Formats: sequence, C-alpha cells, structure tokens
Amino acid sequence: MSRAPYVSFAVRPESPGRRLGSRDVVEALSQELSLGRLPVGSRLPPVRVLEAQLGLSKNTVQTAYDELVARGLLETREREGVFVAARSAGHEVTPAFEAPLPKLKPPPDLGPTRIPRDSIMLSTVFVDPELLPRDRIEECARSVLREGLAPFYDAQGHPGLRDAIARRLRSRGMDVDADEVIVTCGSQQALDIVARASEVRRVAVESPTYSHARLLFENAGLNVTSLPFDPFRGIPLDEWEQEIRRARPGLLYNITSFQNPTGYSYSTHELTSLLSLAERYGFSLLEDDWGSDMLSGSEYRPMLRLLGGKNVLYVNSFTKKLWPSLRVGFVVAAPHLVPALIAQKRLSALGNPWLTEATVAEFLERGYYDAHLGSLQRELDARYAACLETLSQLMPEGVRWTTPGGGPTLWLELPRSVDLEKLRERCALRKVLIESTRNHFAGAPNLHGFRVSFAFSPVATLRRGLEILAEEITRA
Amino acid sequence: MSRAPYVSFAVRPESPGRRLGSRDVVEALSQELSLGRLPVGSRLPPVRVLEAQLGLSKNTVQTAYDELVARGLLETREREGVFVAARSAGHEVTPAFEAPLPKLKPPPDLGPTRIPRDSIMLSTVFVDPELLPRDRIEECARSVLREGLAPFYDAQGHPGLRDAIARRLRSRGMDVDADEVIVTCGSQQALDIVARASEVRRVAVESPTYSHARLLFENAGLNVTSLPFDPFRGIPLDEWEQEIRRARPGLLYNITSFQNPTGYSYSTHELTSLLSLAERYGFSLLEDDWGSDMLSGSEYRPMLRLLGGKNVLYVNSFTKKLWPSLRVGFVVAAPHLVPALIAQKRLSALGNPWLTEATVAEFLERGYYDAHLGSLQRELDARYAACLETLSQLMPEGVRWTTPGGGPTLWLELPRSVDLEKLRERCALRKVLIESTRNHFAGAPNLHGFRVSFAFSPVATLRRGLEILAEEITRA
Repeated sequence: MSRAPYVSFAVRPESPGRRLGSRDVVEALSQELSLGRLPVGSRLPPVRVLEAQLGLSKNTVQTAYDELVARGLLETREREGVFVAARSAGHEVTPAFEAPLPKLKPPPDLGPTRIPRDSIMLSTVFVDPELLPRDRIEECARSVLREGLAPFYDAQGHPGLRDAIARRLRSRGMDVDADEVIVTCGSQQALDIVARASEVRRVAVESPTYSHARLLFENAGLNVTSLPFDPFRGIPLDEWEQEIRRARPGLLYNITSFQNPTGYSYSTHELTSLLSLAERYGFSLLEDDWGSDMLSGSEYRPMLRLLGGKNVLYVNSFTKKLWPSLRVGFVVAAPHLVPALIAQKRLSALGNPWLTEATVAEFLERGYYDAHLGSLQRELDARYAACLETLSQLMPEGVRWTTPGGGPTLWLELPRSVDLEKLRERCALRKVLIESTRNHFAGAPNLHGFRVSFAFSPVATLRRGLEILAEEITRA
Repeated sequence: MSRAPYVSFAVRPESPGRRLGSRDVVEALSQELSLGRLPVGSRLPPVRVLEAQLGLSKNTVQTAYDELVARGLLETREREGVFVAARSAGHEVTPAFEAPLPKLKPPPDLGPTRIPRDSIMLSTVFVDPELLPRDRIEECARSVLREGLAPFYDAQGHPGLRDAIARRLRSRGMDVDADEVIVTCGSQQALDIVARASEVRRVAVESPTYSHARLLFENAGLNVTSLPFDPFRGIPLDEWEQEIRRARPGLLYNITSFQNPTGYSYSTHELTSLLSLAERYGFSLLEDDWGSDMLSGSEYRPMLRLLGGKNVLYVNSFTKKLWPSLRVGFVVAAPHLVPALIAQKRLSALGNPWLTEATVAEFLERGYYDAHLGSLQRELDARYAACLETLSQLMPEGVRWTTPGGGPTLWLELPRSVDLEKLRERCALRKVLIESTRNHFAGAPNLHGFRVSFAFSPVATLRRGLEILAEEITRA
C-alpha cells in the first residue's frame, strides 16, 4: 500500500436538507480534533473524496482545510496530503486495538476437504470425471453465455431448470410440477433447508448412512435416531418399528437406491412397509434418490416418492452423475411446504448462481442427460462386473462384499480381527486411500468395513489398489 | 409414461460371494409372492435389468421367469413384460399409501422472492445492471471455459479467487492471506456460517439493519439485541454501551459503510470506540463491508478489519457491485477460525459452483474489478447528486433524508403523521414500489421511513417515481 488509510468523520448540515458549506466542515473537524478523536499524524480524506461524498465544490473543502491548517490543527505534507497536526488534542499513538477473538464451535470431523492427486481413492463416491460429459456441459454453458447472463437469480431456482426436472420426474411416474421443485446447491443444501425448517427436531437415519447428512442433522440440533441395518440381509423392519415407536422421529431420512455407503437398494416391499410405518407412527419421509439414475434400466423403478405421493420429500442431485463442480441438486416438496423451504434457502444463501443452473437446464432440455446416463450406466456396469471379478480373485477368506447391481460403490466387510484404523494407515503409506467409516454410523458401528469405489478409477488402477488392500488385509 | 413402474426385490446368494443362479431368483421371487409382498398385476423387472443388476446371463433370468410362469405365479403379457399373476398370494390392490405431511416451521416474512418488471423499484439495494460489466464477465466466463471446467470444487473456495481477494484487501491496508478467505454464496452464506458456528448464541445488531441478517440470526436461534441509532445523528455510543453491558452479546454485526438501510457510514472515531467497547465487554465483531467499494476514493478508507486486526470477521460480496446472479461473496477470518467456518459451509452446501468462482477470479486477475469500480462510483455519484437535487425540489415540508455521500441508497424519513403502510399501497397502485421496513428493525422502529434507491433506475425514471411518491406523501 502506497499511502496511509485516512480517517473519516461525519459532517452534518446545520439543519437537515440544507446544503453543506466550508463552515460545516471546519466545525465538524475542529470538534473531532478538540475531543481528541483523530489521532495525531493520521491522514485526512483527499479533497476530491470529500468533494464527491459531501457534494461540495473542491474549493469549499480546500477552504476548510486551509483554515484548519492556518489554525495549526492540520498540517500539509508535500505530495502526501493533509494530516492531523501535533498541536491538535489528538493522542500520539495510533489506536492499536486488537478485537476479541470470536468463539466458534469446534468443527465436526468431516474428513479431508480436498482430493489428493497421486493416490488411489478406494472409497470415494465420486464417479470418474472421464465418464462425465465435460464437453457437452461446456457447450451448454457457452450457449447460455451467447444468450446473455441474466442479472438476477431466482431464489427457488432457474425456472427452465425446474421445469426440465419436473418433466423428467413425471416421465418416471412421479406427479411433480415445476413449482414443487426447489433447486439447491447439491443435495447437501436440500438436506440443510429441510433440517432448518423441520418443526419436529427428531430425525431417524439408517445406520450406516451418508455421514454428512448425519453430521448436518446433529449440528442443526436435531435428535438423531439410529436405524441399524445389515446390507447383506436387508431392512429389519420389526427392529426399526420398535425403535421408531420409542424415539418418535418427525422425519425419516433414507437413501433408497445404492444406499451410501453400503450400495444397498430397498425392495418394493421394504418401501411400502416403510410407508405403512410412516402412516402408523406419523413420521414424514425424506427420500434421497441419488442412486437410481445410476441403475441400468431404472426408468421405471418405483421410489418412495412414487409409492407415497407428494408428501414424501424427494432429494436428488446432478453432482455425481453429471459434474461435481456444478453444485446443482434439488428437493421436491408438496406445494404448501414450498414457501417454508424457499424461505430457509433465502436465509442461508438467498439463491444460487444463475449460470450453472441455466447450463444444467440447457443440458436437460437438449436431451443430453438421459443419453449420458445410458452410457454412464453401461460403463458403471462394466466396472462393477470387473470389480466383483477382481474381489473374487484377490480377497482372502472371511472378506465379504455387497452386490449392489451397479452404481459407484459397494461395501467391503472384513473379519472383526482386522484393525481398520491400522489397515487404513498401512494402505495410506502405499498411496491407497480408504475412508474412515466412523462417521457413517449413528451410534455403535454394526458393520466392520468400508466403501469400495469401482466408479472412480479405471479398472487397472482399481485392481492395483485392491491388490495392495488384499495384501494388507492378509498381513493384518 | 408409457409403462408401469416395476417392483424390485432382493436376491441373495446361498452364501456370500457365491455366484447367483436361476435357483436363487426363483426362490427369492416365490418367497416374495407367497408372502403377498408383490401386488397382483405389478410388473417384474425386465430380463435385461436383472441381467445387469444381478450379473446373471439373460438365459438364467429367463429360465427363472419361465419356471414361475409355468407355476402360475407370474404371467407374460405380449410386448408389456412379466407380471404378478392373480393366482399368486398378492393383494389385488396396489398400495395407495399417502405418506404423512412433513411439519415445517412457518416461513418468516422475507418479502417478495422475485423482482417485478413493470414497476419503479424505489427501495431496492440492487444497482442498475446497465451499470455492471456484463460483457466482461461473459468474456471471463468464456475464457474459463476455454481452459476447461474443473471437475471438483474447493470447499473453501477457488484458490485463485481467494488469492485475488486477499491481494486486493492487502492493497487496501488489511493484513489478509488467501488461506484466511472463505468464498461464500453472497454475503448471506457468510453470515449464515458465522451464525451456525457461533458458540455464544447472542448477537447485537444495529437497528435498523439488513433485514435478512436479523431474520437469519433469529431463525438460527440466536438471541438478537437491538442497538438503535439515528442516521441523522450518528452512533449513540453511551446508549449502545448500556445495552451491551446488559445483554452481553458474543458478537456484534454491523455495516460500516453505506449502512443498509440508512446509508450511514461510521466515522473513524465511532469505529475505534466500538473496538474499545469490544475489548471492554469481550464481544467479537462481524463487519459487513458491502459499501466501501461503492464510495469514491475509498481505497484508503479504514474499516473495522483494518483498525481491529485479524480477529474482526470481515464479510464482503460481489453481488451488488459486480453481478447479482454470480452469487459470490466471502468472509475473512483469523487463521485458526477458518476450519470451523469451512466445516459449517460444508455441512450447509459442501461447496459452491466452481465456474462462477473461476469467472470472478479471472475478472479480478485481469484488473477489471478496480477499473469497473471507478466508473461505477462515478455513475453512482452522479445519480446520488441528481437524487438529492430531485428530493430538494419535490419533497414537501417535514420530509428529511440522509446524505450518505454516494452508494446505492439513502434513507427518507417522513413525518409520523404519514401512514407508511397506506402510502406503500397507494404508491403500489401507481406502480411505484416501496419496501415494507418493519423487518429492518430489531425491536420497535425508531425511524419512520424507508430506503430510496438512486442506483437502480435511470435518473428520469427515478424522478418519475419520486414525483408520484411526493404526490402521495402530500395527499396523505
């Protein structure tokens, strides 16, 4: 910085509305100076600045400064400006306050913020960007820019995008209107605004579940009930009913296809049973349907939102399937719940960037999304098959894995004798990264393993990662 | 939708890891059917779907279906697929559950979501998009697209953008490092993550203040203390001290330049006095500096963050000054507070779109921002001068207004005899929109007026709006 900051002070006209004159400036400044409010040596605003701010002519300001310099209260320094003189009543020291440090809650352990470059990511839920349609997204963004950036955002979300989303959901059997869609920053913001808006502060979640949902609910002060399940056996509906009867959640959050982190998909019977439980115990449903678009032939798969109607809150996102850095997701809600959710979105972020929403709208309108999903599903199915094959070849006795039938991940279950934390450390030394799974469980872990991602790395890379993993498991 | 959705069901191998055969499919399905879990007439997944999901050959699935058709449990319908037969134990009725409706908190009154087109917006804080550099932003976005979309976002914000922001703040005298900057979705998300993270759940705000900040704090469950001030007289520091001593806020939120909604700018003495109070009563400071960039010659204006050092939380945004629909803002925090704020941002939205952040980074790196601010300030100063002139000509006796010295708005104070709500309604009938100001006040309103925006409309349009306003005030 080439110059010192300058002090500011108020100049008020004798009576409101009257034009300011140099008298007003002299009086305001000499009062500040006589009260010692302007430190000795501090710089006054340049004439042109006061001119613009006070609507005075240059002359008027200069006249005022000249008078105060003549009275010895200010002094002029060549090429530097006008400063508070030592003769003024100002203190010698520049105020060296240090404001008190804000007290913030310690951050919950969310895992690493960034993805390291030179390691094999064995547990990520992200899909290999090579399988995602970067060129076509860029093409859509360029097309949007050609039409021109809209100046304002829509708090509910880009109308064309909401319309395209509603049309797509209708083609999959759900009764959805564009006005029932709220576009969000990925599904995380969708979960956040539901959590903020929920009147009943008790939520039930699968255990294990998506860790950032559980941590969000806890951080928002919701009481979280754990509904344990074993992905090798399905949903224990009787146990869940007992737990629900005891805890009386207002909301049940679940992931109905390719459950994160287990890869489990609910059967139709399990979904309708959940709906019966919801009716019996009066809780509402928050369905996270991130997975079904990754399932081959999923266009007619019935989700909770289809079976249970408009009262089911339905969340989905384009993050994993289209392009992570776009940050576009959405929640679908019954019409009269929409204002409460938009209000929470406005309080948290007002609205999201128009450009990315318009780009995704363009992508959907051109029919690119379903074409892309078709090829993505084929690729995921191939990688899934290769992963199963590799696991069968490499994994030692006692290791089991779920067979999700597609998607990006499966759950690898290890013998209890294997120390997961040590395994993680040993693999990390060999540049194979496994996630810590503690955060997935609401309550005590009922599984002993972690996600294996077959969607993120090419087959050969995944195989290398699994070889190292198998060696380290065997050594454990 | 051309076809009915199909049911799903789980098929598990006899022992984990073993390959599935048609036996497994037959057993799983006949069990579901005998338990009546699949409604009569519901559609089975197509063979190709089970093939992909279960990793079976087409033949294996077909064999299983054929066997169940032969047993009369399933039936084939030409060109439609395989369905649950009436002979199975299934119920006739399709489950017609309706899930319970979620209970959501009623939304706070945040005012209208969208900006109407054919009215004169007399109270908006937005700047006329015609004064904003749309072409150059689009140029930067195209340049970013040429380099290629990054697949992943950075939860803290685009590193190049954080770097450019830190450099710019350093050139204005603040000691800021890129690692201390967290990019947010406008300043609203910055306020939100601070509110979420605050350990002390008591905040003090100016009254009037930015309404969405006050509503956010209240909605987040913070206890909000009102610090009333009169923009015609400045900050009543003694009264504030009394109130602070009584309420013991953990945080004080204020807007130091062109305060929203009054247009008031703090004097240096008021800022240093606030810092002394902060030290004496142990509260921390959350400075919203949206205004100073709109102030001519503001490059050396000392803000709280400059006077009080790194402990002051500093919020700013590009929304009003660059382009609203980009939704880019930021908060600057002392290094060891950064992880807590990033964690709250991740819980609320994970991260924001990379494309818009990269575009703003490019805009700053090219030096476009300061060039733009120079011309924006000139235009705002001219509109400000024209607004003062018009008000002097048009406003009846007893109407006063603040003289902010620039920026986008001033506060118009009316005689108490004028019914603001009726005035608002009468002006709205004539397509001149004034905002309701109730939300600006934490506690009883200590002013009787509203914002006048001289930044949003061209001079002639503003004049027309003010003429109608003056007529309606006179008639009241």
